[in-house]
Amino acid sequence: MSYGEPYYAVIFTSTKTPVEEGYDEASRRMLELAATQPGFLGVESARDASLGITVSYWESLDAIAGWKRHAEHLEVQAKGKSSWYESFHVRVARVEREYEFRRAD
Amino acid sequence: MSYGEPYYAVIFTSTKTPVEEGYDEASRRMLELAATQPGFLGVESARDASLGITVSYWESLDAIAGWKRHAEHLEVQAKGKSSWYESFHVRVARVEREYEFRRAD
Repeated sequence: MSYGEPYYAVIFTSTKTPVEEGYDEASRRMLELAATQPGFLGVESARDASLGITVSYWESLDAIAGWKRHAEHLEVQAKGKSSWYESFHVRVARVEREYEFRRAD
Repeated sequence: MSYGEPYYAVIFTSTKTPVEEGYDEASRRMLELAATQPGFLGVESARDASLGITVSYWESLDAIAGWKRHAEHLEVQAKGKSSWYESFHVRVARVEREYEFRRAD
């Protein structure tokens, strides 16, 4: 679906430590919680053995800032740095155009 | 690494058909070929059972347009639509800010 450009994407790429405890549960919870935030449009996520990429979509930079400082999200961000992530990279980008393809049935 | 904002990201999300023939080879070849294009900055990719996300980074919109119409890439785009992809979504976005974390050794 298109969210109507311009809107914003947060591109979160990460590599994990071997620590798995609590990670899947926290990831699921953050996806659920993000979806309830003002200005949230959607999220897509994929992880394989070497890299995880999560892209979330937002109406505005204010919406992104609000989510970044959400209390429960702040706790999980701290846990990510102390335990789960070897490295991560966050990019905030303005979506300027898009197109999509869907196979005809 | 930072590429120095502003630069551009192409966010390519896709779902696959069951057709695997030629897919891995073409994917590898496209990553190699993209890396030789003018204005290419980098690429990150992850795929799991439900979704693939590839984000490539470029100096300019012109660089992105050049890669989109590269002859060998056009052939693979056509093959993607006829065989490999159930659906895909391409978003072109301007990276406005970023930050990163690396675990201290």
